[in-house]
This record gives sequence, C-alpha cells and structure tokens, in this order.
Amino acid sequence: MDTIGFIGLGIMGAPMAGHLLDAGYPVIASDHRKPLPADLVEKGLAAVSGHDAVARAADILITMVPDTPQMAHVLFGERGVAAGLAPGKLVVDMSSISPLATKDFAARINALGCDYLDAPVSGGEVGAKAALLTIMAGGPERAFQRALPVFEKLGRNITLVGGNGVGQTTKVANQIVVALTIEAVAEALVFASKAGADPAKVRQALMGGLAASRILEVHGERMIKRTFAPGFRIELHQKDLALALEGAKALGVSLPNTSTTQQLFNSCVANGGAKEDHSGLVKALERMAAHEVA
Amino acid sequence: MDTIGFIGLGIMGAPMAGHLLDAGYPVIASDHRKPLPADLVEKGLAAVSGHDAVARAADILITMVPDTPQMAHVLFGERGVAAGLAPGKLVVDMSSISPLATKDFAARINALGCDYLDAPVSGGEVGAKAALLTIMAGGPERAFQRALPVFEKLGRNITLVGGNGVGQTTKVANQIVVALTIEAVAEALVFASKAGADPAKVRQALMGGLAASRILEVHGERMIKRTFAPGFRIELHQKDLALALEGAKALGVSLPNTSTTQQLFNSCVANGGAKEDHSGLVKALERMAAHEVA
Repeated sequence: MDTIGFIGLGIMGAPMAGHLLDAGYPVIASDHRKPLPADLVEKGLAAVSGHDAVARAADILITMVPDTPQMAHVLFGERGVAAGLAPGKLVVDMSSISPLATKDFAARINALGCDYLDAPVSGGEVGAKAALLTIMAGGPERAFQRALPVFEKLGRNITLVGGNGVGQTTKVANQIVVALTIEAVAEALVFASKAGADPAKVRQALMGGLAASRILEVHGERMIKRTFAPGFRIELHQKDLALALEGAKALGVSLPNTSTTQQLFNSCVANGGAKEDHSGLVKALERMAAHEVA
Repeated sequence: MDTIGFIGLGIMGAPMAGHLLDAGYPVIASDHRKPLPADLVEKGLAAVSGHDAVARAADILITMVPDTPQMAHVLFGERGVAAGLAPGKLVVDMSSISPLATKDFAARINALGCDYLDAPVSGGEVGAKAALLTIMAGGPERAFQRALPVFEKLGRNITLVGGNGVGQTTKVANQIVVALTIEAVAEALVFASKAGADPAKVRQALMGGLAASRILEVHGERMIKRTFAPGFRIELHQKDLALALEGAKALGVSLPNTSTTQQLFNSCVANGGAKEDHSGLVKALERMAAHEVA
C-alpha cells in the first residue's frame, strides 16, 4: 500500500485525509507551520516537519491548496515538495488552479523523475465529507491507474480526461457551466417573479422539460427559499471564473457570458455576499430589478 | 365530449390535432385559406369556412399559431374567433406569444362570457408527434380542469402555473434557461477544446456532477457530433428571447446574459444558421475564437 503525503488539511483536505486513514493508508503530513487536526492524529496521521520531509517519507503526494501561488510555493518554495522528491514518486494535485501553470508544474516535476496528475474535484465540502467528489484527472494513464485506488476512497465519477492540464481545464469548464446555469436560472426566476408568477411553481413546471438541471433543482430552490448559507462560496467561484477569463485571454477564446457573470459576482461581493452560496448571484439581478424573487 | 376547434394545423398543430382525433374528439378546422391536411381529414377532421365558423361549431377553441400578431388576427381580425364565440366556450392558446398581450386577449375574450387559457408548450415537433409536450398553463382553475383531459392527450408535465399570462411568462422563463444553458455549455466546450482537451471527454466528466443538465446531455452532444439539423430552430428561439427582452423592458428587469445570447443568435443568423438547431449557437463562439469544437 502506497504511503500518502497529504499537504493542505483544510475544509476539503481534512475529511479527504480522514477517508484515506479510514481505508488503512499510512498518511503523513507536516506540522512545521501549525499543529495537525486532533481527529486525524487520533486516526493515525503521522507528522514530519516540512513539505520536503513529507515528500521524502511518502510514495504519493496529494496537494489540496487554495490557489496557484500557494501550489507553486508548496512545490518549489523553501522546504518545498520538489526538494524531497526522488524518482518514481507521484504528485497528485487535487486543488483547483490554473491549467496553464499546471503544465509548467508537471514538466518541472517530470524532470525530477516523477509523474504528475492534476485531479481537481467538484462537490465541495459536502462531497469531501461524504467521499462523493467528482474527480477530473489530467496526466499519464499509468499515473492515473496508480492513483485510482486512492481516488476511489474519495469520490465517484472519476475520469481521466487527458494529459497534464486537462484535468484543470475540465474543472474550469465545469465551473463555467455551473456559474452560467445559476445565472440563467436567476434571470428566469427574476423575470417570472416580476411578471407576477409564483417562482416556485415556475421552477416546478420547468423541471419537467428541457430546462431541467441539477442547478435548477438545487440552486433554484435556494433562490426561492432564500437559503444562501454555503454551499459553495461566491468568492471561490470568482476565483474559478478568473481562471476561465485568464485562460480565455491566453488561448484567444471569447467567453461573453462568463465575463458578465463574473461582474455579477463582483456586485455580490460589493454588497457583502462574498461568503454566501453562489446561488446568491440572484441578488445582483434582484438589485438591478428592484425586486426580490421570494 | 367537448367538440374541439383547432386553428393552426402547422408543424406542431397538425400532430396535436391528430392525437385528439385518435382519442375520439370531434375536431373542426377552417378550410377558408387552404385545404386541410389529408391525413387528418381521413381521421375525421371536419371542415367549416372561417375562424368565426370554427368558434360557432366548437366548445373548446385551440390555437397554435406562430406569433402575437397572428394570434391577434385569429382572435379579433376579419372572420375571427371572437365573432363566433358565445358564452361558456373556452379559448386555449397553445402558441408561444407575448405574456403582456395575452393578458389583454384574455380580458377581451372574458368580456364575451368565455374563459381563456394560455397554455404554451415545450418539446417541439418531436414532443408534439409523440404526445410528450410539457404544458405550462395560465388561467382560471375551472378552465384548466375543463381542458385537462384534452391536454392529457397531448403531453405530460402539465402544470397550472397561475392566472392568465403566467403560462406564457413560464414559457419565456423556460426559453431563457434553455438558451443560456446552451450558451454555457458552448462557452465551456470551446474553452476546453481550444485548451487542448477532448470535448467529448469533458462533457462526459461534467455529466457526473453539478454541471449536469438535459442541455449538456443533448445539445452538448450535438455540438461535438456537429448534428445541427433541427430540433428547435435558432430563428424560433430568437423570437422567444425577443419576448423575454421586450418583457424585461416593460417590467423593469435586467437580463444581461439573455441579451448577449440573443446577439450570438443574431450572429448565427447572419452566417446562415437561422434554420439550424439552437445548439448551433456554439458556432458564434467558434467564429469568435477561430476554433471549432469538433
């Protein structure tokens, strides 16, 4: 059984590491910056000091960090993973970061004789806790097969989509569809409500046809019932759409509705909604129309 | 059994009238402008001359016409339905027309002692032929109950959403969600494809999570396989988004992504795509990116 080094025991990472410990994997983390979560230590989490030390002790390194700069720091900064790697080890980045930076990171890790997988997830904190994450992987087939037993402890709908960077590209594509579908449902419900229709009945009628989606079901209901506790925070979705728009510029792609939807997220943040669920996007349209769906 | 007067035996109306004849309803239509479809006559369709004559002979008048001006003409023009109505008859408009005009039409029909239902459908030609239309009704409960046995011969997912106009409002809301979800999927697939990912694999990975929708399934596949034969024509979806944008102005609602998506439909029409399926929207983004998904 591979020994797992886990870097990033936050809201997502901690329950994920817990599942791996539960499954019997030896899991190692670094306590050089702060003490390790007590519940994980109780389950057998081992401590070393520094990401380089984690890399030395583990066969597979899993990273789950907030953004591209932190991922760069964890890999290549002081006491970084790269300093502790040896040929044959595998780096699996499950963070959601830049697809373009990922190709560069993968090349630099490959140069050390190690495979790299980008394997971002969707499903959020709820999915992480329930081990029901969707995992979108990019990298070599052999690396994917090696990581697959680990992934199977963390989620379902596990897909190798392509080479390095393609996992992150797929995650960005996912976040484009999710944000723009939330925006679509919000436009429809604000329109219908201001026209005098009951938005709950409209949602119900639409669920039977071509407009049906997970978003209409889950986020449509949130908009109507005004349950904007996260869920998935607007400030995180802003980060994902920033990756989409940055990528669009670099690739020469036009994403008109992604661009506008990001502006609506900006408006939500300006009005104190950064930490609300992304279904709170509806409030930006409500303010524009001086009318609440509820 | 109510006698049905059917006005508008086009691509949608003809199969709908056929289902009613199959179910044993007496169905009457006007041949004052052109001969009636032979297959319907064979099933027992009766002919009179003029919409006023249809209204005189029928208990329930069903209309299925292309747009608001034609509906106004059918009801209130020369030899129109209104001239032949008597108290107790029911007008059921299954066309997709303006919610605002609908309230006016309903009031004028009510003044003649007749109920009015707006009952637009989704599901297109395929749904009409298979009797699987989604029906979104607006009007009085008693009128809905009277029409329900007829609706049940034409579709499923039959909902009384509210009063007159609300059926049409719901249809507009449906078309907003459908168009904007198609646009969302198109942005995601063009982005992913230009970033070097296989769009078919991306679509597959996304189907497992929160991005899942009927549109991603059906229209996402059309974009990848380049099957743009209708389906539902871009020029018809343009008409529906025009109703949304006209309604938004009248109501004081802002629909930013509906507005942009209509511009993309305009671009499709400019490039010869008016009669393609609405999934052909992706071509507008492809032209902007100088890159095809396929």
